Amino acid sequence: MNRLELFAQIKKKQSFLCVGLDTDIQKIPSFLLDTSDPQFYFNQKIIDATAPYTVAFKPNLAFYESNGLEGWNSLEKTVHYIRERYPDIFLIADAKRGDIGNTSALYARTFFEKINFDAVTIAPYMGEDSVTPFLGYPDKWVILLALTSNKGAFDFQYMADGDGEKLFEKVLRTSQKWANDGNMMYVVGATKAEELKGIREIVPEHFLLVPGVGAQGGNLREVAEYGMNDQCGLLVNSSRAIIYASIGPDFAEKAGEAALETQIEMKSLLAAKKLI
Amino acid sequence: MNRLELFAQIKKKQSFLCVGLDTDIQKIPSFLLDTSDPQFYFNQKIIDATAPYTVAFKPNLAFYESNGLEGWNSLEKTVHYIRERYPDIFLIADAKRGDIGNTSALYARTFFEKINFDAVTIAPYMGEDSVTPFLGYPDKWVILLALTSNKGAFDFQYMADGDGEKLFEKVLRTSQKWANDGNMMYVVGATKAEELKGIREIVPEHFLLVPGVGAQGGNLREVAEYGMNDQCGLLVNSSRAIIYASIGPDFAEKAGEAALETQIEMKSLLAAKKLI
Repeated sequence: MNRLELFAQIKKKQSFLCVGLDTDIQKIPSFLLDTSDPQFYFNQKIIDATAPYTVAFKPNLAFYESNGLEGWNSLEKTVHYIRERYPDIFLIADAKRGDIGNTSALYARTFFEKINFDAVTIAPYMGEDSVTPFLGYPDKWVILLALTSNKGAFDFQYMADGDGEKLFEKVLRTSQKWANDGNMMYVVGATKAEELKGIREIVPEHFLLVPGVGAQGGNLREVAEYGMNDQCGLLVNSSRAIIYASIGPDFAEKAGEAALETQIEMKSLLAAKKLI
Repeated sequence: MNRLELFAQIKKKQSFLCVGLDTDIQKIPSFLLDTSDPQFYFNQKIIDATAPYTVAFKPNLAFYESNGLEGWNSLEKTVHYIRERYPDIFLIADAKRGDIGNTSALYARTFFEKINFDAVTIAPYMGEDSVTPFLGYPDKWVILLALTSNKGAFDFQYMADGDGEKLFEKVLRTSQKWANDGNMMYVVGATKAEELKGIREIVPEHFLLVPGVGAQGGNLREVAEYGMNDQCGLLVNSSRAIIYASIGPDFAEKAGEAALETQIEMKSLLAAKKLI
């Protein structure tokens, strides 16, 4: 999916919500464990309930890998299900991969050829040749970690060089030599939304994938205030606050309501920016 | 496997070789493609041929994930095969994972519980809470990326702060607050072996996993000169130079010869240091 198509979806659905399919077999409603494939069953119901309000789904690979072969199978079925029923939804593999060039090329093959994702999250530590193998696919995207929303972000990402440039800023600047706003996005945590202002000065046009709104404590209105550009430029992810809105028999219904609630707020933010 | 057991293996086998099982379905001998599980078949033969000369095996996950379910299955069978036949060999998942705490905990579950690896490689970009979930397992190890051997290492890992401390040095120093030399090792690329001298000043006791000797251009003698400590403290990885020593019917035999050749050099280096 290219940039224009993504923006068209955002306007059509009046939403820039990404639902994180962090489907933990130990957290889903226990009565689902009797089904033959609980992760996939749960995902189907969550997907159907939230798809009208979301422009992207983002399974985090850890939740599937931790179930071994079965989990990997559930992931492939989930992707296939979304592609069949909701072909206009942007599909992100939250994998945080990154390895030397020939190895990254294999991860690219995995996520863009074997499984038909639109985008994959990548860790920047190993630099250019760990990222570029993902960039050779038309209409596919790298989403590079810049500033993450966890406590550990403070360990290295804020390290500043002699000129005061921080590591996450260097990641944003340097990576623009490898890619452009049509094939790269950035993960930017929302725990301190005002930082988006400075980030927008470095990457005014790029889409930002913003986690941490919801369970990790970010604020949607502030994220939009500091981060939205004239093509929206934001995908705001919510995982636990939506998919675990209830763990009762009404889990899908409640997930749909939580997604709708978020979409309504997003609609008002898009309207305020005159994008819809 | 704990530190003393690993050192005992090194002395017993007179080797600190790690064989990287980077088994690319597109690079293995083509006549193997007729077998029911070519990756696993190739691995079996390589493992049997090289096990006498190696103290560690390191499958890189990308090579298995890129074959989807089949590849994941080949990986699990490979680990099982090594555990059954060579229980004293140290087993590293070269996964380069790293995510927020609750997600890293799932990756730990994958590699230490679902699959019985001794160690997993982790990218440091997301900091402490992305690493610590892997540290709660007795006799299991994190191998943290510090200085990698690829060209992209220069993009961020050498960034220096106002005091001249480089990012990879900060990773080495900071991570010692989270772990110790009994549950953490570091990936240190060997393209510039003399840098190991400075690294040894920061981490004198820790084991270092050194890739890049062989296909990536490092020099074993220099690595030992600058990196070996009084418990060896080195695992030197070789992948392509060993496993693809031949792509003919003699591929296993040639891999064994290449491993033996390396082991003979390692023996002389261990003897020179009076460790055997």
